[in-house]
Amino acid sequence: MHKELPWIHPVLICISLVAIAFALFHFESVKRAVVGRPIRSRELNQPHHKLVWWLALPVLAADLYSSVAYGPEAGMTELAPLGRTAQWLILPITASTVVLLTILITSYIMGVTAYPSGGGAYSITKDNFRSRWISLVAASALLVDYVLTVAVSVSSAIQNLASSFPALMGHQTLLSVACVFLILLVNLRGVSESARVFAYPTFVFMACMLLLIGAGVADDIHRGAVQSVTPPFGTLPSGLTAMLVLKAFSSACSSLTGIETISNGVPIFRDGQRGAIKAYIGLGTVTGVTLLGFAAQLYVKGIRVNPHNTMLSQLAGLYFGHGPLYHLIIVFTFIVLILAANSTFTGFPQLAALVAGDRFLPRALSLRGDRLGYSNGMIVLAAVSGLLIEVFQAQTNALIPLYAIGVFVAFTVAQVGLCRRWVRLRPRAWRIKAGINAVGGVVTALVAVIFAVTKFTAGAWIVLIVLPLLIWFALRIRAHYDQVAEELRIDASAVRPEQHRVLSVVLLSGVHRLAVNAVSFAKSTSTDVIALYIGFDDESIARFEQKWAAWGAPCRLIAVKSEYRSLLYPLSKFIRRLENYEGGKPDHIQIILTQFIPKKWWHNLLHNQTSLLLRTWLLRHKDVVVTTLPYHLQR
Amino acid sequence: MHKELPWIHPVLICISLVAIAFALFHFESVKRAVVGRPIRSRELNQPHHKLVWWLALPVLAADLYSSVAYGPEAGMTELAPLGRTAQWLILPITASTVVLLTILITSYIMGVTAYPSGGGAYSITKDNFRSRWISLVAASALLVDYVLTVAVSVSSAIQNLASSFPALMGHQTLLSVACVFLILLVNLRGVSESARVFAYPTFVFMACMLLLIGAGVADDIHRGAVQSVTPPFGTLPSGLTAMLVLKAFSSACSSLTGIETISNGVPIFRDGQRGAIKAYIGLGTVTGVTLLGFAAQLYVKGIRVNPHNTMLSQLAGLYFGHGPLYHLIIVFTFIVLILAANSTFTGFPQLAALVAGDRFLPRALSLRGDRLGYSNGMIVLAAVSGLLIEVFQAQTNALIPLYAIGVFVAFTVAQVGLCRRWVRLRPRAWRIKAGINAVGGVVTALVAVIFAVTKFTAGAWIVLIVLPLLIWFALRIRAHYDQVAEELRIDASAVRPEQHRVLSVVLLSGVHRLAVNAVSFAKSTSTDVIALYIGFDDESIARFEQKWAAWGAPCRLIAVKSEYRSLLYPLSKFIRRLENYEGGKPDHIQIILTQFIPKKWWHNLLHNQTSLLLRTWLLRHKDVVVTTLPYHLQR
Repeated sequence: MHKELPWIHPVLICISLVAIAFALFHFESVKRAVVGRPIRSRELNQPHHKLVWWLALPVLAADLYSSVAYGPEAGMTELAPLGRTAQWLILPITASTVVLLTILITSYIMGVTAYPSGGGAYSITKDNFRSRWISLVAASALLVDYVLTVAVSVSSAIQNLASSFPALMGHQTLLSVACVFLILLVNLRGVSESARVFAYPTFVFMACMLLLIGAGVADDIHRGAVQSVTPPFGTLPSGLTAMLVLKAFSSACSSLTGIETISNGVPIFRDGQRGAIKAYIGLGTVTGVTLLGFAAQLYVKGIRVNPHNTMLSQLAGLYFGHGPLYHLIIVFTFIVLILAANSTFTGFPQLAALVAGDRFLPRALSLRGDRLGYSNGMIVLAAVSGLLIEVFQAQTNALIPLYAIGVFVAFTVAQVGLCRRWVRLRPRAWRIKAGINAVGGVVTALVAVIFAVTKFTAGAWIVLIVLPLLIWFALRIRAHYDQVAEELRIDASAVRPEQHRVLSVVLLSGVHRLAVNAVSFAKSTSTDVIALYIGFDDESIARFEQKWAAWGAPCRLIAVKSEYRSLLYPLSKFIRRLENYEGGKPDHIQIILTQFIPKKWWHNLLHNQTSLLLRTWLLRHKDVVVTTLPYHLQR
Repeated sequence: MHKELPWIHPVLICISLVAIAFALFHFESVKRAVVGRPIRSRELNQPHHKLVWWLALPVLAADLYSSVAYGPEAGMTELAPLGRTAQWLILPITASTVVLLTILITSYIMGVTAYPSGGGAYSITKDNFRSRWISLVAASALLVDYVLTVAVSVSSAIQNLASSFPALMGHQTLLSVACVFLILLVNLRGVSESARVFAYPTFVFMACMLLLIGAGVADDIHRGAVQSVTPPFGTLPSGLTAMLVLKAFSSACSSLTGIETISNGVPIFRDGQRGAIKAYIGLGTVTGVTLLGFAAQLYVKGIRVNPHNTMLSQLAGLYFGHGPLYHLIIVFTFIVLILAANSTFTGFPQLAALVAGDRFLPRALSLRGDRLGYSNGMIVLAAVSGLLIEVFQAQTNALIPLYAIGVFVAFTVAQVGLCRRWVRLRPRAWRIKAGINAVGGVVTALVAVIFAVTKFTAGAWIVLIVLPLLIWFALRIRAHYDQVAEELRIDASAVRPEQHRVLSVVLLSGVHRLAVNAVSFAKSTSTDVIALYIGFDDESIARFEQKWAAWGAPCRLIAVKSEYRSLLYPLSKFIRRLENYEGGKPDHIQIILTQFIPKKWWHNLLHNQTSLLLRTWLLRHKDVVVTTLPYHLQR
């Protein structure tokens, strides 16, 4: 397609440039059309519709449960080079994953009991460590992983869809990026993450997965658990190394991302903490059963890695043919993976706003947009994850090595934080609680190390570079904000407004309506007014001086010749001279510029943007006050 | 390559974005490094180094003479589908081209006698027709053709180079675009088109071409003019249509572009008009001989179209092997084609400046840059031709159909203009002169029509749409400028500056150093000062009011609550209310904003750009004066 339509790319670029120019000029209307009318702040505090636990479960489950669609496959992909005899290893690997899941869920239940109002790793570590950088480790690890969640979920969603609609093959990158921006738009308009409607697709997807496993088990009973296609169990394939098994394990662990969602969502449960704990147990059970059942089926049916057909799609095709049931499974897998990405569009901006509120990230991330969401955070998330998808060409398996390492780092610091909390506060049964979190911390730390080592060359190094960089930046940002606050502080009782001496300079380009307006304004606000004319040659200066005299020379005129045809240099030199104007520097030098405001957007091209450039340059380089008098063209 | 390095594209995008951000902040220094120090206007008028005609000839010849590298090949390409028996047709076609060349050169010599100070088609038509749109036809046709000259010459240069260095194959588009931007940079720094140094490569290239033809003729004498590979002469191939012959003819005519260069360059000849006429005759002879000789060799040696090896390269390889002589020819073909594109970087901006001076194009095109060249025109030329190369993937033969049509349109109107001139002024031998230009006009009009018809579907339709659009835009631009001039005109004796009533509104975000500064400035320039605080909730308003009182309430304070967390809406509403402030609208409402100016470029990310956005919005939508007080952060 790219070869046949070589012009599509530049034409798209041109269209986008014009569209951007148009949108900038009509920014308000375009924004209203895309984002919708603004919402009042007070609507923020209206109560959530609280949900009963089994309805809240699927609402918050998309992120974790959807990962079963790519986790086991990611593990199998690592084993693929060893051939069929290695396929049985997926069973012990998945079993270890489920053990890890149990440990994590237990530790998260501890977290929920400690922070019933909802506490992510950042809040927990901030609360339990005095050093700022530990909570920043948690924050940056989670932020990185949110970005990867979007990239992985959307890529995987599109890959699943392409498995059943081969026409989409080869366009995954474009489709995935388009998907991300669609999700962004929906979120900029604003969706409540706790919308009950999100429960149903996840329910249907869970039912589909269980049905798939059920159909497999029924088939196993009918035809035996060892079938003709089943690879032999227990034989050690040649070339098997501990490293490879650990690699496969870490890939399979990508199914464990998203566990934190419920702990952040405690407020939406009708029975609060208790509901969240029930939901954790329920979700853990369903996920564990699904993972084990799915892995067992992959093994028994001898499903192999095929880049053009996901394992989920192969298995569904095997049991249900390519009829309506197959397409139902594919479509709901797609929907649930998109929901997982969508939930990240709440998680990332909220966390970024929290961190920005502590002045570790640009303040803009902590401001709510028109629709009450943290729009800037959403835009950053979409941009970075879109770029990642583009870089990795929407290849889920290429993204997996970067993934999950962040989650496990965040898990670890959160567990250690909880542990410190139990030791410090010593509540009932604190030893048991601290013990659980200690075990959890050690295991997750171990997994994080396994990740970093086994996936180092495959991409984990990127994360290991990005994390310290993010922390370093965060600390520098905080230092900058602290300095600015220090600089701006005044003693209100000691500092009073003073009478300042203001010298006004009116920059003129001719004797016309704009000049009348500008000189009138200057003389009305200041007693010291100088008109400045910068000409490019002697004739134009003589002509201007003559017109000025004919006009009656309403104020002092200084005409300067610019040999370099630039306004900046002579203006800059002039300002320097003014600093010793008639006995000492004035408190303010006010430069008065006039600017055309055209009625039609393309008319901007016809008026040179001198005053815009001058203003930007003056404000940045000189300590002057810049006053702009707009002139609105009538046609 | 693209497949193996999928990340190269987005990574390049990222790097460019950071580079752009950096360059914008350090605009002055980056510009100095790239473009060089500015040059004084008076250096413009220093006398050219005048050249003797045979040295001026090659300096001005690159554009026309370089086209022999692609003209005959373009003709052959059209005949290729008919097979070998059609190859002899290149001889009569090239002969007709040379006849046309003779007519054109004769008419151009007429032009030089009429306008010795140098007159392009635009000046001639402007001088001889009262209707504006006729000269605009000439101008837009030439502008379009200048753009195409760059695209075609650069694409052809790279194609030639790739013929001898196959490693470059597949990267032509990238290389061509890079070449265009390199030429742009060189021209932004400024090169004198009349630099004597440009004479030598063209001389060498001419010598190479004549040597090539000489070697061919020697070979013909040695082995006979009909060799084993020579296709039969005179047989009419099946499938031959008049349309196809005309198509091949119009493609071959692309070798005739660039004739106008000498007539624009009359001032650089030591003996003026006479020198230019000599140069025209000399150049016409060399070009005619080369075209005929080259076409004859292509026929005799049975050279066929090969997209991976230009005909020039095939022929050179045939006679000289792939030794140093071959590479010399290839390299000098490359250099001369690049020189042709380079000369366009003088022609296009000069013409655009001329047209912009008549207010038919944006004024910015008529301003000289730091290095005295019309930099804006150069940038537009590079951008548009770069885009064309990208769209047509640097395929010379795909660009040819768009090419030359503009030149022939411009030729036609110029000839008709000259004809009118002779009839009007009736100089000596005016009947002969008018006759020559009339014949020239009819022939070029005919060729233009042949072009438009035969190449219509191959791309000429684009030009036929673009030309009227450009003319329409030019007329609308002129109408706009006329309206603005009308609007701004004042009767200097009747209009005097008046005392205006200015109401100043200081927008505050807190009681800190910026507020002290802003309130002091406002109170020093205006007697009517209102402090405005916009809070997002009741608490922040109460807190501000308390601090304000503690500070001693130096002026009247109005605190507004913004339920939509926006500054624009409440400010806009407030301005509307002020229009009836205490007995009638003030003459000016002055909004005073403060703005942080950070020391490091990335610190801009940390301060929200509220005052920038507000200023842009206010200036565009409200009739207010906006004053910006910068606060330069110390660290």
